[in-house]
Amino acid sequence: MKNIRLQSNKLILAVTVGLLGAGSAYALEPLPDKVQCPSDNPASAAKVELGKQLFFDPRLSRDGTVSCNSCHDVHGSGTDNRPVSIGVGGKAGGRSAPTVWNAAFLSVQFWDGRAASLEDQAKGPILNPVEMAMPNEKAVVDRISSIPGYPQQFAKAFGEKTPVTYGNIAKAIAAYERTLITPNSPFDRYLKGDKKSLSSPAKRGMDLVQSLGCTTCHNGENFSGPKLPQGQGFFMRFPTYAGSEYEKKYNLTADLGRYETTKKDEDKNMWRVPTWRNVALTAPYFHNGSVKTLDEAVRVMARTQLNKTLKDDEVTDIVSFLDSLTGEFPKQSMPRLPMTPNRTTIEE
Amino acid sequence: MKNIRLQSNKLILAVTVGLLGAGSAYALEPLPDKVQCPSDNPASAAKVELGKQLFFDPRLSRDGTVSCNSCHDVHGSGTDNRPVSIGVGGKAGGRSAPTVWNAAFLSVQFWDGRAASLEDQAKGPILNPVEMAMPNEKAVVDRISSIPGYPQQFAKAFGEKTPVTYGNIAKAIAAYERTLITPNSPFDRYLKGDKKSLSSPAKRGMDLVQSLGCTTCHNGENFSGPKLPQGQGFFMRFPTYAGSEYEKKYNLTADLGRYETTKKDEDKNMWRVPTWRNVALTAPYFHNGSVKTLDEAVRVMARTQLNKTLKDDEVTDIVSFLDSLTGEFPKQSMPRLPMTPNRTTIEE
Repeated sequence: MKNIRLQSNKLILAVTVGLLGAGSAYALEPLPDKVQCPSDNPASAAKVELGKQLFFDPRLSRDGTVSCNSCHDVHGSGTDNRPVSIGVGGKAGGRSAPTVWNAAFLSVQFWDGRAASLEDQAKGPILNPVEMAMPNEKAVVDRISSIPGYPQQFAKAFGEKTPVTYGNIAKAIAAYERTLITPNSPFDRYLKGDKKSLSSPAKRGMDLVQSLGCTTCHNGENFSGPKLPQGQGFFMRFPTYAGSEYEKKYNLTADLGRYETTKKDEDKNMWRVPTWRNVALTAPYFHNGSVKTLDEAVRVMARTQLNKTLKDDEVTDIVSFLDSLTGEFPKQSMPRLPMTPNRTTIEE
Repeated sequence: MKNIRLQSNKLILAVTVGLLGAGSAYALEPLPDKVQCPSDNPASAAKVELGKQLFFDPRLSRDGTVSCNSCHDVHGSGTDNRPVSIGVGGKAGGRSAPTVWNAAFLSVQFWDGRAASLEDQAKGPILNPVEMAMPNEKAVVDRISSIPGYPQQFAKAFGEKTPVTYGNIAKAIAAYERTLITPNSPFDRYLKGDKKSLSSPAKRGMDLVQSLGCTTCHNGENFSGPKLPQGQGFFMRFPTYAGSEYEKKYNLTADLGRYETTKKDEDKNMWRVPTWRNVALTAPYFHNGSVKTLDEAVRVMARTQLNKTLKDDEVTDIVSFLDSLTGEFPKQSMPRLPMTPNRTTIEE
């Protein structure tokens, strides 16, 4: 047991599994095509459309060059397929952009789970100096308020007297993000009875991820762990088994993960368990984007989390299964951004 | 006449006017809702859709952070509403991004007219080291060819044996850009008989731009000059009247314009006459994006091009007219980009 870094992982899981009842924590489930909205942010067509506009609006960044979509590209994987993202002024972020697709199914957001909701998450990058770099909430609200068309849309979506607030900006973006769901992957169709939708390698891979133990963590409808109350994260230590050849090669421990937020020793190298949904599309992998291919990511995970070294055909089968988790991306209309006639909102 | 810098401007215009017949060069015309395609690049639905994908695909840039749409945002004004654009690595470009909306009506592209067509234009920024920064055409073709889905789409659009070529990438983008047309502005509706579509100030402004002489250059369906054969540009010196207070204030002469391309003395400070279509949305103004508001841009133009100082109410009226040139932006579906399962195409 000397290589297992901390037992509290296992304890957390055991408790979780206990809470949910044996079996259910490891269940493979289809992805729903809808997600529930929080009671304080019900969806409406007006709010979702406003959120889409804001998601694509680079004026939420200081110099007008970076929108939410810049790093979470919904035309593609919901990421930027880069190791780390590039923000205002060409600055590099510290971690790889997680996909926005199906993020609505996570109970906490960011790699370290420091946001309890999509609403909380949306407030972060806008003010992060290496991302969208707005100086403060007031500057964001002032700019959005000054754009003819936006205040009216906020009023329609939120029906308040002072509709453009930082909180409402985040709520609108979150409402849009709850529409970013990719159901009906080959795996989902298989679960629903279409036995031909999975290839033989994918079926073997599906068995392997369960027998090897991958689904101890990657389970549930989103393959990101058991369904937990909003705000309660499902975290694991990465690497769990210390000292593998991959740890140094991919610099896996330099970033202390959840510890950076909580400063609690037991949170060192703890990370929110990421989704497998569309994982085939979101290379490069891990919090630092250090691993370029899914094959290698599978090898790394088997070694660091399960202390197992996979054979090549096992890797191939697991990747085939993971490929089968690529869902159907909904058709969307392009947003039309309200403009500022005769002037620009960008000062630099 | 001592302040008029070069007579060849006037000569060019005189010749042009002569060619077109008196009157027609100054005509105000509605914007067509279609534009002709060149014979070597006929449009098809498959080609336009492919072009839209490429236009939005940041993998056309070295580090995967910049797409055509980054600087020519079709969700908005077709520009980035910045003084100059920001390319890969946070590098600043030399000139302000012209709008892609209605660019199809221009006979030459770029501020200095150095591209004879949309196809030629599309080839530039991808390889420009301060824009998308790809090292060479082969690297672009190799990357696009390596993305499953693209080669098949190119084959459908171009029906060739080696469909992914740099030329075909540019052709597809140009085909998409020819759909970016904004007809039915209030002004267009006025011309077509809806006399209520223009306000009184806008009507006064319409008279003013003709009586003052603005439409000597800003005429035709696109307000960018007379209809000329593709590749033949309509250029004017800016400033024509040297030594105004604005010249220094806005640093108008440091960039020598078309001269930078041709190295001919007579091209110093010569620029393609830009469109007035949607000009209210494309602040900041001029080749260096130095003027923040349309009001001020109107004052500058009157002084530098016509040697006139406008009264405030004249400026207001002209801006009202220019506002009436904001057209209807077509509804578009979002493109879906082909992905590279299990790997990323971005190396850095």
